[in-house]
Amino acid sequence: MSVKILLEESEIPRQWYNLAADLPTPMQPPLGPDGKPISPEMLAPVFPMNIIEQEVSQERWINIPEEILEILYRWRPTPLRRAFFLEKALGTPARIYYKDESVSPPGSHKPNTAVAQAWYNKQFGIKRITTETGAGQWGSALSFACCLLGLECKVYMVRISFDQKPFRRLMMETWGGKCIPSPSTETNAGRAILEQDPDTPGSLGIAISEAVEDAVTDETKQTRYSLGSVLNHVMLHQTIIGLEAKKQLAKIGEKKVDIVIGCAGGGSNYAGLSFPFMADKIAGADITIIPTEPTSCPTMTRGPFAYDFGDTAGMTPLLPMYSLGHTFVPPPIHAGGLRYHGIAPLVSQSIIEGLATPRAVHQTECYEAAVLFARTEGVIPAPETSHAIAAAIQEANKAKEEGKEKVILFNFSGHGLMDLVGYEKFFAGRLQDYPLPEELLNKSLLALKDLPKPKVAKSGRW
Amino acid sequence: MSVKILLEESEIPRQWYNLAADLPTPMQPPLGPDGKPISPEMLAPVFPMNIIEQEVSQERWINIPEEILEILYRWRPTPLRRAFFLEKALGTPARIYYKDESVSPPGSHKPNTAVAQAWYNKQFGIKRITTETGAGQWGSALSFACCLLGLECKVYMVRISFDQKPFRRLMMETWGGKCIPSPSTETNAGRAILEQDPDTPGSLGIAISEAVEDAVTDETKQTRYSLGSVLNHVMLHQTIIGLEAKKQLAKIGEKKVDIVIGCAGGGSNYAGLSFPFMADKIAGADITIIPTEPTSCPTMTRGPFAYDFGDTAGMTPLLPMYSLGHTFVPPPIHAGGLRYHGIAPLVSQSIIEGLATPRAVHQTECYEAAVLFARTEGVIPAPETSHAIAAAIQEANKAKEEGKEKVILFNFSGHGLMDLVGYEKFFAGRLQDYPLPEELLNKSLLALKDLPKPKVAKSGRW
Repeated sequence: MSVKILLEESEIPRQWYNLAADLPTPMQPPLGPDGKPISPEMLAPVFPMNIIEQEVSQERWINIPEEILEILYRWRPTPLRRAFFLEKALGTPARIYYKDESVSPPGSHKPNTAVAQAWYNKQFGIKRITTETGAGQWGSALSFACCLLGLECKVYMVRISFDQKPFRRLMMETWGGKCIPSPSTETNAGRAILEQDPDTPGSLGIAISEAVEDAVTDETKQTRYSLGSVLNHVMLHQTIIGLEAKKQLAKIGEKKVDIVIGCAGGGSNYAGLSFPFMADKIAGADITIIPTEPTSCPTMTRGPFAYDFGDTAGMTPLLPMYSLGHTFVPPPIHAGGLRYHGIAPLVSQSIIEGLATPRAVHQTECYEAAVLFARTEGVIPAPETSHAIAAAIQEANKAKEEGKEKVILFNFSGHGLMDLVGYEKFFAGRLQDYPLPEELLNKSLLALKDLPKPKVAKSGRW
Repeated sequence: MSVKILLEESEIPRQWYNLAADLPTPMQPPLGPDGKPISPEMLAPVFPMNIIEQEVSQERWINIPEEILEILYRWRPTPLRRAFFLEKALGTPARIYYKDESVSPPGSHKPNTAVAQAWYNKQFGIKRITTETGAGQWGSALSFACCLLGLECKVYMVRISFDQKPFRRLMMETWGGKCIPSPSTETNAGRAILEQDPDTPGSLGIAISEAVEDAVTDETKQTRYSLGSVLNHVMLHQTIIGLEAKKQLAKIGEKKVDIVIGCAGGGSNYAGLSFPFMADKIAGADITIIPTEPTSCPTMTRGPFAYDFGDTAGMTPLLPMYSLGHTFVPPPIHAGGLRYHGIAPLVSQSIIEGLATPRAVHQTECYEAAVLFARTEGVIPAPETSHAIAAAIQEANKAKEEGKEKVILFNFSGHGLMDLVGYEKFFAGRLQDYPLPEELLNKSLLALKDLPKPKVAKSGRW
């Protein structure tokens, strides 16, 4: 059998899958500062209305516009790969498959939603999109998408990453995006922070505040803001990953998947792969679904299910999600994309239901897994992706112990060519596992006490 | 029509094409220090005999071992892409296609021969391979190949690149290769240089000397040296590129290619794409074949056809090739892979025959082409590759002027994600076109006078 399973362009999924339609308990709404549900109209200065409609949609299937597919065809359908060489190295009876999202020009799954969001903004007459980026994967994906669609793109990049990761910024600029360090002097939010602390390294929370302010204060009303994870419409756009994977497994006669794994920061690549399989699980299939996260930022495994802000400054609506508290600052692990205090509401609700079983993994175990993967499968993983690989290896070893021929599927969310510094530290023996900063966490969790509480609504079916 | 034309694994070419079998005048042999032809046996301490046999083979078609194909399947067949968006931006009636060799895990065409060479070495009982690398593309490809085949790999990397490009070194180390700066204290050649000049930035010539010395002085006789370009067997292994492209063009009914373009440093990616089309030209087809090079290192457009050394120190056999003289040091353009004084003997002889028409392009024109390409096609090119893109754009513009529907094919030899510094300089307006250092060139060419002269043998058919 082949190491890679391909689909023809004609076989690409033509609809996205919306998990909200199938969850046994309905999603709880985002809340405003007054504790009342946010209406679609209230979001209109931030997002275009066609995207807001997707955000609140209860439709199970949503058509993918042909013009979006035309752009996705540049790298989609992506290969599903059989990890023969990793299997052999592990001596496992498990069959391990991975969906290779690293083949997009920006090198990750992020363009799946960047292209869709840019297209919907353009349809709505928007000329310019703002966003924030931490390590730079999202900023480069949105710059890429805006470039292909002829939109302006402005990225507020956390200052410390801006200084330390010039190559991500250069990717954005090569695609015509404008990338500036945050906090900047271009927004009230940025200026206020700089006045207090001119040498601040910045944070994702500050960068979100700046990008949102930039969008809503544009007097021409032709600018909107874009978010690369967490929200329902982002999860939706990523489901093309899992829908393709199902077709690919069917193509080679692989009838049943036992375990589905994805790393989860905001949750989008994990949701993209797993939600179509979760639909099968809701319909009765026996599938174990594992979102993996860093032990040093254990949102799903340690956080409560709470209403919390999406940003540090508390400017966004309150979202019902697992959260470590919006002031929690995770230790500086290399998987920057997983250093987020919350997780997507859809991911959260499916965990409440018992549809998924989160798992936390230590940084050094992840790098060990990443190096084994690079030396067997040949592709160098992003630090975020290594969390999925580590869990897949744990499951493959368990299958070996049990002598079971399990089928394991994980998402290879991105390559690590822009993030090799962590590997250097690993090889030099300078990579560490950070203990969870318990005191900081407790302080951060305290702040949740004053916020509204979501219902822990659970059907009890799983 | 689709933006990408794919082949099934079952459609992969199963033989390499050897241009030597079809050139109307026979290739002239490499010469030893005494001016006499080098025999295969004399090369035995440097290369395994199965590779030496390929080097001197006159067979037109050479079977690709199944085990090599099994490794190539990880990323091959590579896509052929129609550059619709670039065409549109140029407003050209030409149809532009590019073969995308950037999809290999190391990001370039280099693994095509790295895997083959590592496999033949392993077959011959070799346990360890040495090589040199400049910018790092070849070193990372050979590390990758050795890793997959379980061989040790030692890379002597030019010191200035070793210091300036830590990420390429980290790629090699992630694949288990050992990479050290050259000159090193591990060889006589390295120690001698360091004694003279402890602060030397190193050079490709020095690194070749060290890698060869390392291989031939291994007392266990289980080490050999590997070269990533120039030699006949390297060109051979790369012809899979052009053979695939021909199948892909046939698949979409594109009956005739008018222009074939590749950038050429040592010549391997250019030869890989063009040689199978050159076979058609030899058989009577009307095809224009254009190897492109930097104006600041104009080997093919300014150099004489001469016998010259492959390395700066004059340790290799003399090869019949276009050369600027082995002491020529090209200006520090960003396309490090094109900063070589010579060009493959097979490429040279086909130019003598009139089968190919070399062209030199300035650095800034190349970066303009690269940015236009990134912003239309979406993929960021390597600086070397931008030389092929620039020539393709020149030809597309010419087709527009002439109002002709020409078919242009070029090789997208690698992505630029590891080489974004040149883009930064370009955007900042700090990128320059270097004048050819005429005095240096004249001095370098003088040294050729004392070496044997090849016959300028020419059939006169083109």
